[in-house]
Amino acid sequence: MSFDSTIHAKAVQLAKLTYEITGAAGSGHPSTGASLVHLVGVLMYQHMRYEPTNPLHPAADRLVLSEGHAVPVIYAACADLGVRYGTDKDSLKPLTLDVAKTLREIDSPIDGHPNPIEGFPFFDTATGSLGQGLSSAAGIALAARLDGFDKRVFCIIGDGESREGQIWEAIDFMKDHDLKAVCPIFNCNAFAQTREVSPQQDWETTAKKLEAAGFNALVIDGHKGSDIANALAEHAKSINPDAKPVAIVAKTVKGWGAASQQGNGHHGTAAKGDALESVLEELDATEVKLGAIADTPLKIAMMSPRPTRDQVAAAKPLPFEQAMKAFGQDKALESGKFATRKAYGVALRAIGHAYPEVVALDADVNNSTFSGQFVHDDKLGERFFECRIAEQNMFSVAAGLAAGGKTPFCSTFAKFVTRGYDQIEMAINSGCQLKIAGSHAGITLGADGPSQMALPDVAWFSSFATMTHNATGKPGFYVLTPSDAYSAYALTCAAAEHEGSVYLRTLRPETEFLYSPEEEFKLGGHNVLMEGSDILIIASGYMVHEVNTALEALDDHHIEPTIVDLYSLPYDEDAILDLANECHGLVLTVEDNYGNGIGAHIASTVAASGDGFTVEQMFVNKIPKSGKTQDDLLKYCGLSSDDIAKKAITMMDALPV
Amino acid sequence: MSFDSTIHAKAVQLAKLTYEITGAAGSGHPSTGASLVHLVGVLMYQHMRYEPTNPLHPAADRLVLSEGHAVPVIYAACADLGVRYGTDKDSLKPLTLDVAKTLREIDSPIDGHPNPIEGFPFFDTATGSLGQGLSSAAGIALAARLDGFDKRVFCIIGDGESREGQIWEAIDFMKDHDLKAVCPIFNCNAFAQTREVSPQQDWETTAKKLEAAGFNALVIDGHKGSDIANALAEHAKSINPDAKPVAIVAKTVKGWGAASQQGNGHHGTAAKGDALESVLEELDATEVKLGAIADTPLKIAMMSPRPTRDQVAAAKPLPFEQAMKAFGQDKALESGKFATRKAYGVALRAIGHAYPEVVALDADVNNSTFSGQFVHDDKLGERFFECRIAEQNMFSVAAGLAAGGKTPFCSTFAKFVTRGYDQIEMAINSGCQLKIAGSHAGITLGADGPSQMALPDVAWFSSFATMTHNATGKPGFYVLTPSDAYSAYALTCAAAEHEGSVYLRTLRPETEFLYSPEEEFKLGGHNVLMEGSDILIIASGYMVHEVNTALEALDDHHIEPTIVDLYSLPYDEDAILDLANECHGLVLTVEDNYGNGIGAHIASTVAASGDGFTVEQMFVNKIPKSGKTQDDLLKYCGLSSDDIAKKAITMMDALPV
Repeated sequence: MSFDSTIHAKAVQLAKLTYEITGAAGSGHPSTGASLVHLVGVLMYQHMRYEPTNPLHPAADRLVLSEGHAVPVIYAACADLGVRYGTDKDSLKPLTLDVAKTLREIDSPIDGHPNPIEGFPFFDTATGSLGQGLSSAAGIALAARLDGFDKRVFCIIGDGESREGQIWEAIDFMKDHDLKAVCPIFNCNAFAQTREVSPQQDWETTAKKLEAAGFNALVIDGHKGSDIANALAEHAKSINPDAKPVAIVAKTVKGWGAASQQGNGHHGTAAKGDALESVLEELDATEVKLGAIADTPLKIAMMSPRPTRDQVAAAKPLPFEQAMKAFGQDKALESGKFATRKAYGVALRAIGHAYPEVVALDADVNNSTFSGQFVHDDKLGERFFECRIAEQNMFSVAAGLAAGGKTPFCSTFAKFVTRGYDQIEMAINSGCQLKIAGSHAGITLGADGPSQMALPDVAWFSSFATMTHNATGKPGFYVLTPSDAYSAYALTCAAAEHEGSVYLRTLRPETEFLYSPEEEFKLGGHNVLMEGSDILIIASGYMVHEVNTALEALDDHHIEPTIVDLYSLPYDEDAILDLANECHGLVLTVEDNYGNGIGAHIASTVAASGDGFTVEQMFVNKIPKSGKTQDDLLKYCGLSSDDIAKKAITMMDALPV
Repeated sequence: MSFDSTIHAKAVQLAKLTYEITGAAGSGHPSTGASLVHLVGVLMYQHMRYEPTNPLHPAADRLVLSEGHAVPVIYAACADLGVRYGTDKDSLKPLTLDVAKTLREIDSPIDGHPNPIEGFPFFDTATGSLGQGLSSAAGIALAARLDGFDKRVFCIIGDGESREGQIWEAIDFMKDHDLKAVCPIFNCNAFAQTREVSPQQDWETTAKKLEAAGFNALVIDGHKGSDIANALAEHAKSINPDAKPVAIVAKTVKGWGAASQQGNGHHGTAAKGDALESVLEELDATEVKLGAIADTPLKIAMMSPRPTRDQVAAAKPLPFEQAMKAFGQDKALESGKFATRKAYGVALRAIGHAYPEVVALDADVNNSTFSGQFVHDDKLGERFFECRIAEQNMFSVAAGLAAGGKTPFCSTFAKFVTRGYDQIEMAINSGCQLKIAGSHAGITLGADGPSQMALPDVAWFSSFATMTHNATGKPGFYVLTPSDAYSAYALTCAAAEHEGSVYLRTLRPETEFLYSPEEEFKLGGHNVLMEGSDILIIASGYMVHEVNTALEALDDHHIEPTIVDLYSLPYDEDAILDLANECHGLVLTVEDNYGNGIGAHIASTVAASGDGFTVEQMFVNKIPKSGKTQDDLLKYCGLSSDDIAKKAITMMDALPV
């Protein structure tokens, strides 16, 4: 009984700290934290192998708090244990109760939800948008496996939160990849924000679902230290090859230890003043009632780091043409045509060989995105993770892999990337760098129709191109739409080297080579394909080819355009303004997506300059449909070479003579 | 045996047609279709109650093909049965085999994936982005229940597709809402695009998962007519109050009937020419081998429509102040302050009373979004659907409700709306009109930190503001960010009346009233709060108040700005240009989200005009964090009234004298 009693004492202490911290903040979710006090007590004071003074130790066990709003209880434990924090990894400081009481202040290192970039590296990933933590935990465990660390990753999931389908995508993913180092702990406190959780999320149904998915679900009293310790020990044993994976279903009480904080109406409310005092008194009474005495020493043991795998030195990826030959694409090289999605595949394989930290993920379409090049390479296959048709999980797994020091390249159709936008933003917020290849972008996908076409994607990703990431000083995202295989190859290589996140739009159709091996491409760059003096036409991807096709008609009208392949957002604004200036300030943008993309960015540049230039935009302005050829779709959407030529001619005609 | 034999004959016929149609198209997914031939045979020729000549009949059973790529087999059946199609509902024509063979052509009414807006009303919602159909089916069934129709909704789900967590969100939702009229049919053909499905998605595990979720999973041979008919009859029986819900798990063969089309490598490939001939021969041989003879008449019976509930006539919603009083908000009215999210709640309740087709959905945060006003109103509660923490499902359910003639208002934090962006786009593609209220938008959310803040949302939704919806001629989305309770109320009412989709960003903080009952607000509108002549400052939402606060500092510098509350995107471009013109073409935009929002739209307007105006933009340009007050956050992100004043003064100073 003494261990249970000790954990009760710790639980009361953590509950009191949790209420004090949130009371000082004036907001937060202490009742959720209180439901976790025993679990956190056993995990952080006894079971997890880590060093509070060195939370970043690569061999340490990790904790992912998927129900991020419960974080004050973790801060409470960290303040008690002196877990170190800080943005400068070389001079971390122990968290104190005083600092913990700055919770949610603008200058505080501890945010309302786990937020590692603000200086709390005990967490690898930001959480708080629910349902994502188990996937991140899986990614962290995959990275550890690749590095040869046998650490465990504990993940606490709320019962209400487990309604998010992504949790079950993660469960399936863990089973597929035999990721038993992840220990999912379902905190079944029976209450969500507005009311009781659905019966579909009660502990019993949750346990049944886990069993159906092939897990051994251990149902425990989440307020009994020995039950928790036994279940965690059971999980540790399950890591051997023949055992079933283990998940823990903990029956808990929201607002444990203080009846006034239990039941409905106590989700996001912090007790203050007298109410706080009375909660603390209730907790004292609970301590007495339970006879909670800390008579058993608790000890955190750092697991001695197993030797990691041998580090492999990075190399330079092969140049494009060599890579094409090395990977059996000689014929395409001679043909003068190669889809950018295929060039991405070849590049992914080349950087896979060059950079040992590059890993690849795909969602059952590697034969469409051409990440299959990586998958089927004997030397790379083990660094590929098939995520099946579950994009949300894929992006959060990638965030976990990035947190574990890997460089994840995720691919699926650009349309289906949308499924993971929230997960992608949380990765950015975590300081995790994702490289995302969205294939079949825009309308030139053709026959499959609009359910497969990415159209508002440029608007969303390039919104991040307008901000600067706090941790790197780089744009939140580079949005890259290469127009040919040379540039697609070069930009994929550049993405691998870049310290930041990149969204690469690749295309379905075979596109002609526009460049030679000598051409250079960089994030933030562009390419002047033709220098004229009448009108500046800016396009990306497939639309560059369409602009080229329009040249003949323009020539008939004696119009000499400057043509820019604007393969990157953001871009060099001064250079674009100079080019516009040389064309009497007449600019036409052309893109294969809905508006608020390239055209809006160019308009923003131009309007901010005060130069008085004119920018007209061509983009997809209705919902596309199926069509057999690119030309059918381009005509349907008013983006054919004829439309482009007509538009440019009209703009020229409108010029004052 | 004769029913089985008859269905075999029908199956062979449908398989042949499927290959012929996709062969003519040169692309498509016939092998998936072939796995469904018996299911489609029994469903569409015998079991479903509908009229091929009137697929829109309100009492008819519906079919949702969640695995949209299998659609050619449905077109095959429709061509055989003469199911009517067309965009003009008053003059539908029977589908013929010739028209079916135009599959995927730019002028064809039948797209590569189900696409009702192109003129195939047999389907209610567009599918093809996987995992969404079961949720849509649930929405269709909810609408039917509200209208008093006892129709059933059959939903065919791919096994690979069932990896999407949204499928399981839908299963939980159906259980919560006792939606036994939906019949989920899992097509377990064991192959996904790249390879075999995961063991986590095999028929056995799928059945276990369904049982765990409280369903009676009927595992059947999907190529045996009598098995299928029995299972469907079992489902029909389950609709009585005491029975467990039924789901069908059909074991099928991908590429059934033609061995050359089975196994890996036959996902998205259409047999052409000789290959097609040989597949057709294989199918003939299968027919012979099975002794398939159509010796039993199949008959489709239209269910006689049950009387619908009495129609309630629409009224006008109460004016704001009356609604405030009617719903117990007198005090707030006197206080002069009321959060826009609260005004949304009051408006939702008012329009709920006025318009019987208005329904509301929320994802466990109705006490934050204030849709709780609707939930707890005795007269409205039955039109509210709690979706729990599962946003993807919520938006697809809403699409189904819209397809069923309802006007769904969905609310959750604007940040969590992101979870459903792909579902929202599919709703738009379906011609379903969603009204979405994203609360706690922008950085003024404050203490909870960036995991709860919507920041690239304006960029994404307003990308749809640049396009015109094919079906309505209206913008794909109106993006509305009201600044006070009067405007929030009026715009929610306007959203209810609008024929199209609306995204309303509401704010957490209490904001002062800026308007009076006389003021008018409309989609596409804006409001001139102050007319000056020095600089045009354009803002929305909370930033309007911050601009107002900056006035004092501007006044000190003798700067008289024009201030525009640009609560709508899109907006009246000419009017904005006129206002800019009156301010010497000097424009400053201010918004509480990442860039590519209001500023980019204004820049686009200005740059297209050729007027030579200057637009400078202020927006959130780094990742925010927790902070206790709005002011903390605004300062942190460089968007305080001081920052705004400084920027305006700098712009004025830079003007040529």
